[in-house]
Amino acid sequence: MRRIKLTIEYDGGPYVGWQRQDNGVSVQGSIEKAITDFCGEKAKLFTAGRTDAGVHALGQVAHFDTETEHPLDTIRDALNQHLRPHPISILSAEEANEAFHARFSAKRRHYLYRIIQRRAPLALEGNRAWQVYRPLDVAAMHDAAQVFVGRHDFTTFRATQCQADSPVKNLDEISVIEREDEVRITTVARSFLHNQVRSLVGSLKLVGDGKWSATDLKDALEAADRTRCGPVAPAHGLYLAKVDY
Amino acid sequence: MRRIKLTIEYDGGPYVGWQRQDNGVSVQGSIEKAITDFCGEKAKLFTAGRTDAGVHALGQVAHFDTETEHPLDTIRDALNQHLRPHPISILSAEEANEAFHARFSAKRRHYLYRIIQRRAPLALEGNRAWQVYRPLDVAAMHDAAQVFVGRHDFTTFRATQCQADSPVKNLDEISVIEREDEVRITTVARSFLHNQVRSLVGSLKLVGDGKWSATDLKDALEAADRTRCGPVAPAHGLYLAKVDY
Repeated sequence: MRRIKLTIEYDGGPYVGWQRQDNGVSVQGSIEKAITDFCGEKAKLFTAGRTDAGVHALGQVAHFDTETEHPLDTIRDALNQHLRPHPISILSAEEANEAFHARFSAKRRHYLYRIIQRRAPLALEGNRAWQVYRPLDVAAMHDAAQVFVGRHDFTTFRATQCQADSPVKNLDEISVIEREDEVRITTVARSFLHNQVRSLVGSLKLVGDGKWSATDLKDALEAADRTRCGPVAPAHGLYLAKVDY
Repeated sequence: MRRIKLTIEYDGGPYVGWQRQDNGVSVQGSIEKAITDFCGEKAKLFTAGRTDAGVHALGQVAHFDTETEHPLDTIRDALNQHLRPHPISILSAEEANEAFHARFSAKRRHYLYRIIQRRAPLALEGNRAWQVYRPLDVAAMHDAAQVFVGRHDFTTFRATQCQADSPVKNLDEISVIEREDEVRITTVARSFLHNQVRSLVGSLKLVGDGKWSATDLKDALEAADRTRCGPVAPAHGLYLAKVDY
């Protein structure tokens, strides 16, 4: 038995999310079907991050076990062939040892959130970024965001249906930078709570709009109260960028 | 009568091209319909560049004449409203005087051609860049491309159906740069021949592949012979980036 580690890019738009569900097509289900079509085995994928419906990935990681003896490049190319025309791409297939687990071995997860500030509709980036109609105060967002760095109770910034045992997480980094009309928020942590990044971004946007001060953001965090969160940012601006092992 | 100058972004994928045609939906036809739906007038758009099917625009320019007295922001927003769900966005609407002509007043046109070098399919940039499977020698492409700068007979690099009076054009700038796995070719001229940018890029790709030397490229140019052009690069990597007046 071999364990294969896949690195995966996808457009989350057409999917109910990473995870197999009864109500539609999932990224996981599509790749598992490609594995079965390729080597006849019923594979089960384990993933670093169960992205929600509409969330994209630049470097999602998943693993599966297989009896197939094909070379890694053949596995990658064949899965891509069977995945067509899905907007899901296997960037690489690598050997992993049996101690490797895509979810439990992950040391750091990197997320990117894209906001585009302009009035006219996005003809080219329609479901790839959150459009806001007025310029944001990006420096204020970056400065205020630093309150999230370190170990905190993130109850304010997690979905009520979040299944994590504890709301206490360690956030390693968060930065907010501007590039032309785009605001890019990147954040890194060992793990995130359900909807955490979108909740952080939604509240940071209130800071960018001048509706919240840095102190308001700090107070919301310290309240550890979900009702104190700003409106959650839409899924289609979020990308699982990279997973470190 | 007012003359309105529009700056337009679009995804060329769903269209038969800029120009109205009998065989499908055009960008021009879609915007003209939006103008009629908005102000009841049968407008005719004149454009800086009649992009082919599949070619995108970041900053296409067109003008039309109208009796409407609405403010410019209302015109822009209303056209965008009527254009939904087309991936066409009116970035701005400006007043132009009657001497202004989107095509004839244009001083320089800027094109961008995007190539992505990688083996795995493009899940996020599928119809937005030309995918090549092996790394290109970008420095060799840039150096060789400089032979195009200046005044030349570009017969080798224009479509046989090109309707321009003369194949002699002045090319102001061309540069080939690399950014991660992407190659970006930008070129500027007062005007281009039909399929000129895609023909130049297709031949430059042969240089990047090591199949052509810089001398081969120069010889192809000097031959002034369409049969000496490399395979024309696909439409979906090309963007009309900007028009200077």
